[in-house]
Amino acid sequence: MRREGIAGRDLMARIETHAAIGAIEGGGVCRIALTDADRQGRDQLVRWMRELGLEVRVDRLGNIFGIRAGTTDAAPVMTGSHIDTVATGGRYDGNYGVMAGLEVIRWLDARQRRTLRPIVVAAFTNEEGVRFMPDMMGSLVHAGGYPLDAALDTTGTDGARLGDELARIGYAGDMECGSIVPHAFVELHIEQGPVLEAEGLAIGAVQDLQGISWQELSIAGQSNHAGTTPMRMRHDAGYCAAAVAVFVRELAKRYGGSQVATVGAIGLHPNLINVIAARATLTVDLRNTDEALLKQAEAELDAFLRALEQQEGVAIEARRLARFEPVKFDERLVRRIEASAHARGLPVRRMTSGAGHDAQMMARICPAAMVFVPSVRGISHNPKEHTAPADLLQGANVLLDVLLALADEPPRGP
Amino acid sequence: MRREGIAGRDLMARIETHAAIGAIEGGGVCRIALTDADRQGRDQLVRWMRELGLEVRVDRLGNIFGIRAGTTDAAPVMTGSHIDTVATGGRYDGNYGVMAGLEVIRWLDARQRRTLRPIVVAAFTNEEGVRFMPDMMGSLVHAGGYPLDAALDTTGTDGARLGDELARIGYAGDMECGSIVPHAFVELHIEQGPVLEAEGLAIGAVQDLQGISWQELSIAGQSNHAGTTPMRMRHDAGYCAAAVAVFVRELAKRYGGSQVATVGAIGLHPNLINVIAARATLTVDLRNTDEALLKQAEAELDAFLRALEQQEGVAIEARRLARFEPVKFDERLVRRIEASAHARGLPVRRMTSGAGHDAQMMARICPAAMVFVPSVRGISHNPKEHTAPADLLQGANVLLDVLLALADEPPRGP
Repeated sequence: MRREGIAGRDLMARIETHAAIGAIEGGGVCRIALTDADRQGRDQLVRWMRELGLEVRVDRLGNIFGIRAGTTDAAPVMTGSHIDTVATGGRYDGNYGVMAGLEVIRWLDARQRRTLRPIVVAAFTNEEGVRFMPDMMGSLVHAGGYPLDAALDTTGTDGARLGDELARIGYAGDMECGSIVPHAFVELHIEQGPVLEAEGLAIGAVQDLQGISWQELSIAGQSNHAGTTPMRMRHDAGYCAAAVAVFVRELAKRYGGSQVATVGAIGLHPNLINVIAARATLTVDLRNTDEALLKQAEAELDAFLRALEQQEGVAIEARRLARFEPVKFDERLVRRIEASAHARGLPVRRMTSGAGHDAQMMARICPAAMVFVPSVRGISHNPKEHTAPADLLQGANVLLDVLLALADEPPRGP
Repeated sequence: MRREGIAGRDLMARIETHAAIGAIEGGGVCRIALTDADRQGRDQLVRWMRELGLEVRVDRLGNIFGIRAGTTDAAPVMTGSHIDTVATGGRYDGNYGVMAGLEVIRWLDARQRRTLRPIVVAAFTNEEGVRFMPDMMGSLVHAGGYPLDAALDTTGTDGARLGDELARIGYAGDMECGSIVPHAFVELHIEQGPVLEAEGLAIGAVQDLQGISWQELSIAGQSNHAGTTPMRMRHDAGYCAAAVAVFVRELAKRYGGSQVATVGAIGLHPNLINVIAARATLTVDLRNTDEALLKQAEAELDAFLRALEQQEGVAIEARRLARFEPVKFDERLVRRIEASAHARGLPVRRMTSGAGHDAQMMARICPAAMVFVPSVRGISHNPKEHTAPADLLQGANVLLDVLLALADEPPRGP
């Protein structure tokens, strides 16, 4: 297998140049979907696509596709991610995958290397879902999972209508959403978690993506004096919130595997040192790659809450905030990623994505998988988000290998 | 023993009249120490004392004493409490004990009943400690536990100097603090807890008062993505806060007796559903009537925190906010209270005060005890604070019995 690869300086220069658009203190980026900064980022991306001779198409939701023709009209191989960020974003989340896609094109052009299938570099609209919900919106609509009209009618946190903002920044395209159904989709992304770095690995071959269960619990107890109320007569909403947090931690430990559980937000009322809390609200985030286990975790939590209500004399209401089933990526693609890493002598492991990505939406309509590279200390959605240039380059080269192999696959597959 | 007693309508009329001063919506009272409302409350109290023929003396901290002469100059028997309230106070906390003291005087006068010892009805300055800290200030200074000058120099939450406010409302008296050292002090008060009501009892003979240990804990962990960070790699400050709350609850259950433990306030940062908390702050309120057990509880908590630091890879800092040793009330007085309740056919139990009261300060200089009456649902520091008129009357009659017996004790005691 080839060992040649993309030029690291070109990749880094492209990432640096793009990170200057919407740059914030500390080296981060604020380029929230459909703002002026997003427009500037899109304009730069489209310029680069045109410089590379790609045919640029924009769909009605503003998803951007840069298409390099193949020697046949067979279904294209697609890569890409998103260029929007959270308010205090880093420079790699999303952008890395798009920039690396452009460098794959440059590498092919420099060698006048044609492929049987077209290669498409995509940048999906509004992956982060900061201003407009839901997140992963562009790829979700592309995959037919959400109606275009509903997406365009979304009202933002600032009161703006998504369709209006899209027109304002000049990215309301005319291509019908979902027109391009790829032969395969491969997304290159930073891990946004600590596993690869901690295990000294270069490449993650992402084989699945966790299902997510988000709930907000509201606990109604009885406010009383912390000194004069005997333990047996308490209806302590604060204790109940704490008991839930400890329960889900123990549940995750007991399940093992990919199960994670987090209580990230707790609020007590009246939140005073000498008053038993009358009310508590807390969030519960449960994730597992196995839908049956995730359902079992939800059921165990529910049973625990019912028992807690009885035992403590409180009332607990659960409100579902989000629920996504786990996604299995394409086994053949995962093996291709592993094969590339092995050929390049890069330590690799199969892994699970704990975060949501455009690839999970694309997996609805074509074989899909992801390549992860290490994130220093797992930090993301933060200007401190960092991946070493050598790691970024290795990931881009794995993407190159995989795209090349896929792009030469004949129409009926091997 | 006598079964005759105070007239309920007189007691209730006095409480009603006084509760109109500083009245707030919902039937409560806002009469924060050394405000204009406090002055009006004091003026009404002094008028009533004078109408009852009491000698009114005001000390340099504004503590008010209404003195009914005895047939000898032996040390007086003192009762009373406070008439200041919290911002959203009820009408019984403190005021009830002072008003009942006046009704005892009226009862004696109506029968021209003289006592060997003088009887003093006291209203101590700033028991609540809302505007000026520390709380229970008037009785604390009276008992020699805090310097008068420091008390007068206290700066309030509104920036006012206590001594200036005292002069402004006309209650900077000239009697030296602590001049009156009683033969005994008996304070009648609502329970402010749910025990008497829950057990169907009329009278609590308060034999001790809990020691208090208040700490604020600050936990420093590591913020990370709730989906991508495996359980074993977490430094979750939110989980640690919850684990502390569950630990102290289990500690209190294990200790039993008077031990209570409360985590009333929790704050997480950044407090988001999908982010492991980087930091947590929480308060821990531990109380026990036994100083050795309270110390043991503190030591166990400390050991738990050290183990949690190791296990979770977090740093925990504990800041002491308050620490009071338990108070034992006078056994002979407690038995007198029980005897009165028995003679009147009132169901009674010995109990512990979980809250602080002026009597705990007076216990430093003379035999002291307290009489509790039921609080509906244990609610206090709230306009909803309520005790049935019949219960208020029964408590006042027990106070009458105990004061009468004490006031006729010869100088050397029985």
